[in-house]
Amino acid sequence: MSTEYELEAVPNPGKQRDYTIDIDIPEFTCVCPNTGLPDFGTIRISYVPDEQIVELKSLKLYILNYRNKGIFHEAVTNKILDDLADLLKPKQMRVTGDFHPRGGIKTVVTAELNTEDQ
Amino acid sequence: MSTEYELEAVPNPGKQRDYTIDIDIPEFTCVCPNTGLPDFGTIRISYVPDEQIVELKSLKLYILNYRNKGIFHEAVTNKILDDLADLLKPKQMRVTGDFHPRGGIKTVVTAELNTEDQ
Amino acid sequence: MSTEYELEAVPNPGKQRDYTIDIDIPEFTCVCPNTGLPDFGTIRISYVPDEQIVELKSLKLYILNYRNKGIFHEAVTNKILDDLADLLKPKQMRVTGDFHPRGGIKTVVTAELNTEDQ
Amino acid sequence: MSTEYELEAVPNPGKQRDYTIDIDIPEFTCVCPNTGLPDFGTIRISYVPDEQIVELKSLKLYILNYRNKGIFHEAVTNKILDDLADLLKPKQMRVTGDFHPRGGIKTVVTAELNTEDQ
Amino acid sequence: MSTEYELEAVPNPGKQRDYTIDIDIPEFTCVCPNTGLPDFGTIRISYVPDEQIVELKSLKLYILNYRNKGIFHEAVTNKILDDLADLLKPKQMRVTGDFHPRGGIKTVVTAELNTEDQ
Amino acid sequence: MSTEYELEAVPNPGKQRDYTIDIDIPEFTCVCPNTGLPDFGTIRISYVPDEQIVELKSLKLYILNYRNKGIFHEAVTNKILDDLADLLKPKQMRVTGDFHPRGGIKTVVTAELNTEDQ
Amino acid sequence: MSTEYELEAVPNPGKQRDYTIDIDIPEFTCVCPNTGLPDFGTIRISYVPDEQIVELKSLKLYILNYRNKGIFHEAVTNKILDDLADLLKPKQMRVTGDFHPRGGIKTVVTAELNTEDQ
Amino acid sequence: MSTEYELEAVPNPGKQRDYTIDIDIPEFTCVCPNTGLPDFGTIRISYVPDEQIVELKSLKLYILNYRNKGIFHEAVTNKILDDLADLLKPKQMRVTGDFHPRGGIKTVVTAELNTEDQ
Amino acid sequence: MSTEYELEAVPNPGKQRDYTIDIDIPEFTCVCPNTGLPDFGTIRISYVPDEQIVELKSLKLYILNYRNKGIFHEAVTNKILDDLADLLKPKQMRVTGDFHPRGGIKTVVTAELNTEDQ
Amino acid sequence: MSTEYELEAVPNPGKQRDYTIDIDIPEFTCVCPNTGLPDFGTIRISYVPDEQIVELKSLKLYILNYRNKGIFHEAVTNKILDDLADLLKPKQMRVTGDFHPRGGIKTVVTAELNTEDQ
Repeated sequence: MSTEYELEAVPNPGKQRDYTIDIDIPEFTCVCPNTGLPDFGTIRISYVPDEQIVELKSLKLYILNYRNKGIFHEAVTNKILDDLADLLKPKQMRVTGDFHPRGGIKTVVTAELNTEDQ
Repeated sequence: MSTEYELEAVPNPGKQRDYTIDIDIPEFTCVCPNTGLPDFGTIRISYVPDEQIVELKSLKLYILNYRNKGIFHEAVTNKILDDLADLLKPKQMRVTGDFHPRGGIKTVVTAELNTEDQ
Repeated sequence: MSTEYELEAVPNPGKQRDYTIDIDIPEFTCVCPNTGLPDFGTIRISYVPDEQIVELKSLKLYILNYRNKGIFHEAVTNKILDDLADLLKPKQMRVTGDFHPRGGIKTVVTAELNTEDQ
Repeated sequence: MSTEYELEAVPNPGKQRDYTIDIDIPEFTCVCPNTGLPDFGTIRISYVPDEQIVELKSLKLYILNYRNKGIFHEAVTNKILDDLADLLKPKQMRVTGDFHPRGGIKTVVTAELNTEDQ
Repeated sequence: MSTEYELEAVPNPGKQRDYTIDIDIPEFTCVCPNTGLPDFGTIRISYVPDEQIVELKSLKLYILNYRNKGIFHEAVTNKILDDLADLLKPKQMRVTGDFHPRGGIKTVVTAELNTEDQ
Repeated sequence: MSTEYELEAVPNPGKQRDYTIDIDIPEFTCVCPNTGLPDFGTIRISYVPDEQIVELKSLKLYILNYRNKGIFHEAVTNKILDDLADLLKPKQMRVTGDFHPRGGIKTVVTAELNTEDQ
Repeated sequence: MSTEYELEAVPNPGKQRDYTIDIDIPEFTCVCPNTGLPDFGTIRISYVPDEQIVELKSLKLYILNYRNKGIFHEAVTNKILDDLADLLKPKQMRVTGDFHPRGGIKTVVTAELNTEDQ
Repeated sequence: MSTEYELEAVPNPGKQRDYTIDIDIPEFTCVCPNTGLPDFGTIRISYVPDEQIVELKSLKLYILNYRNKGIFHEAVTNKILDDLADLLKPKQMRVTGDFHPRGGIKTVVTAELNTEDQ
Repeated sequence: MSTEYELEAVPNPGKQRDYTIDIDIPEFTCVCPNTGLPDFGTIRISYVPDEQIVELKSLKLYILNYRNKGIFHEAVTNKILDDLADLLKPKQMRVTGDFHPRGGIKTVVTAELNTEDQ
Repeated sequence: MSTEYELEAVPNPGKQRDYTIDIDIPEFTCVCPNTGLPDFGTIRISYVPDEQIVELKSLKLYILNYRNKGIFHEAVTNKILDDLADLLKPKQMRVTGDFHPRGGIKTVVTAELNTEDQ
């Protein structure tokens, strides 16, 4: 599992109108940079595609890239948004990282594509 | 089950005002074009009728058309919206395909009639 | 149970301000005109009264009128709204018929008083 | 329990900004004027205080005043709003009476302070 | 546990855009100034960071400062908002104190940063 | 709906072993002999068949027999057990009538076939 | 509400076999002898009748006897069991008092008829 | 999907002791022999293996055999038990078919391996 | 809060029969001896009293003794059982400590009075 | 994370009686030997300790050993039971592996210490 998986795009099959795709990935795990212990959570992606949609199998493998990587909650949520937005150039996109509690504290990070990002 | 069922319309019995009809079909199944294995999900339809409403028994049979057909989540959601909108010419209509998880990833597709579609 | 019950109104006891009354009737039943078999559901009424409010016991009996009557979901929801609006002349009113699934399909009908109805 | 309890106000300890206080009282009971039988429900209060907030122990005792009093759902909800608004002169206030079903019918009454009330 | 813990800030790792951080602390406890008995509740923080985010371990310890301190619900909710806003200068921030029922009455206090606070 | 429907039996298709059939009928309604008002509830049937099983469509129609019949909770539950046991001669059978609350009181009646009944 | 209501019995309509009647009364309230403040809870009764069953309207009124009476949780649960068992001479009977929390502590009392009680 | 998939067994990897394997298949569908319309449900399998366990991928494909086959609830539940027991010779095994409601009636069939079956 | 509160007993008001008292204390907190950080949980007590029952206000205060005391989950659960059993000499007693997760691991400790303890 | 963590035991602090410790670890993950993709699930441990209990921090680290290891559901559940039983020599012990669905099939494996294992 040391290779780095790449996100892939496929043509949007529903270009006759704007519509929304919501994706839930409840089996996200990465490593806390401070403690070296694993973190767990759900990644939620919601977007309005333009020319392309994300290929789901490549998304599943891309998520594996984080399994043994040390990264903070705020950073990983924004990075997944950056990577997907770079690839897909969607009309709208929001990524939420909803993490399991640690030490009695639960954190949810929600980042949304600004139009000025594009 | 090899015949193709047709959607049918009946006159709107509540034309004294605009109102909303919400329909849930939790027993949707089709076939994944990649794997040949069945997909399952719920189709939700919400619309404001104009002159006609969908006849529910014909809708139930129409849904059977997908049982052994290979089609992707994004495509089938948009196609059901296209077919219903073509038949009914509703004032508003939204179709959601809420599919069971595959490989730890759950997808929901939501398409809404644009006024410019009409 | 062959008599027809009448809705009755009583003076609004809270006329010092506009306020909302929400009523849930989860024991609604009528008969499907196609099959002759009973349908079940919940009728929800939400309104802002003007001079009068509905008397609850008369509402309960009025609902009994449908017990052995053949009527479709869309028609009964709009008719309950018509009858209540005629009697009460409310400032706003919405009636929802939330029916049990039949043949794997569940239907909810929501009708709202238009200001032009008055 | 024949004495009449009075609502009491204390100075607002958070006057550096507007904020909201939500209070739930799920143990409300009064008596139905028609049947003489007890009614049960939850009273919900939500308000933005100005100079004063309600003292919670006095609110708890004030609620006891209704325990053996005959009063209708619409009237008691509006009266609690009147009494609290008279005492506290809040910036905003809403009172909801969410009553247990009677005869298969459930009623919720929601009254909100109009600015013209003040 | 007699020392006073200090909130600490760290640089915002997601400055490429505005985003929201939601934090739930369901293990909050302080002491009621009237009775000397402990109160329990959940503190919810939601904010859009600017230059800095709160360091979560320092937040966890800061919450411990209240464990044996006598303070009212309205006061503690506003004080946590004051302390976090002073430290972080966030673009938006809301703090909710959702307290366990006492004497059959449940209280929730919600304070939001006004732009004029800054 | 004035005809009386008859329960029908069909041969047990799983006679290679004893097994259990659980049937839930959440749309039961009859009439209270005291008030003339309708009662609602769920009938649950659980049995181990011997030579015959109940035909489900006939069971559905049989349940309709009670729709406009005045009968008490205890009586109807025992009668459904009597009728099914007379027809099917099951190895075991239990019938539960789980009725909606009336006047703040909810009743559940559970009757089980005694071996000495057979 | 100062009169004392009496429990009444009616003949058991299902004497062809032993069966169970479960009754839930979620609107029980009495007064705490220590504080004079009301207590709330649910009374659950489960019994196998012999010659008689309790008449439900009389049970509902009997429960009203406790509304303004000072009595402890353990005492009231045992007294309801005593009163019902004296009247009905059931084959089995269990009474549970499931009370709302007070001061963060919730109590449930469960008393069952011993055969030696009879 | 016209081929017939075969169940396959693999050696039990935990033969140091008896243990239980519970398998849930919530995406079961077959066809009603009476109406030709699809039925949906969940198949639950619970067993104590002896020398062999079922290979999960072959089980998933075996379940596909029923997708377009007309078969009754009682028959399919017993047949799945027969097929699995023939292959695996388990120490204990139970199969439950928990089917979606049809016409307001829900059926669950539970069959358990008798020792005399072996 | 530095004084040590004592458990107190009062005479059993229901000595006409054996019965069960279940007590839930969801606001338990103590301190972890390893980390010095607070632990949270629910203490559940279930017992059949003999001559005496625990006085609830003294139980509430007794629980406060642990608020700032360092003690492990297994030890505190057994100690509460020891203290209550010493005082009350109950016929049966079980104490459960159901603690909040720490580091992704949740622990529940359940200790029951052995008859040989008495 | 390439080191192998060892389970550690500490003396049982509650040896005055037999009692039960239930541990839930909802953040278990390992790798499927067939696909190389991660599996997720909850490990539940329930045991009656004798001389020793498991040290929770060592258990948390021990669970990390499986994070990048290829192992089947049945094997890992039995191995965790073997490892804990070898270390602790408990009076009773049960380990359950409750795994996330794969391909629409969910598996739960439950292994219990046999007395003849000891």
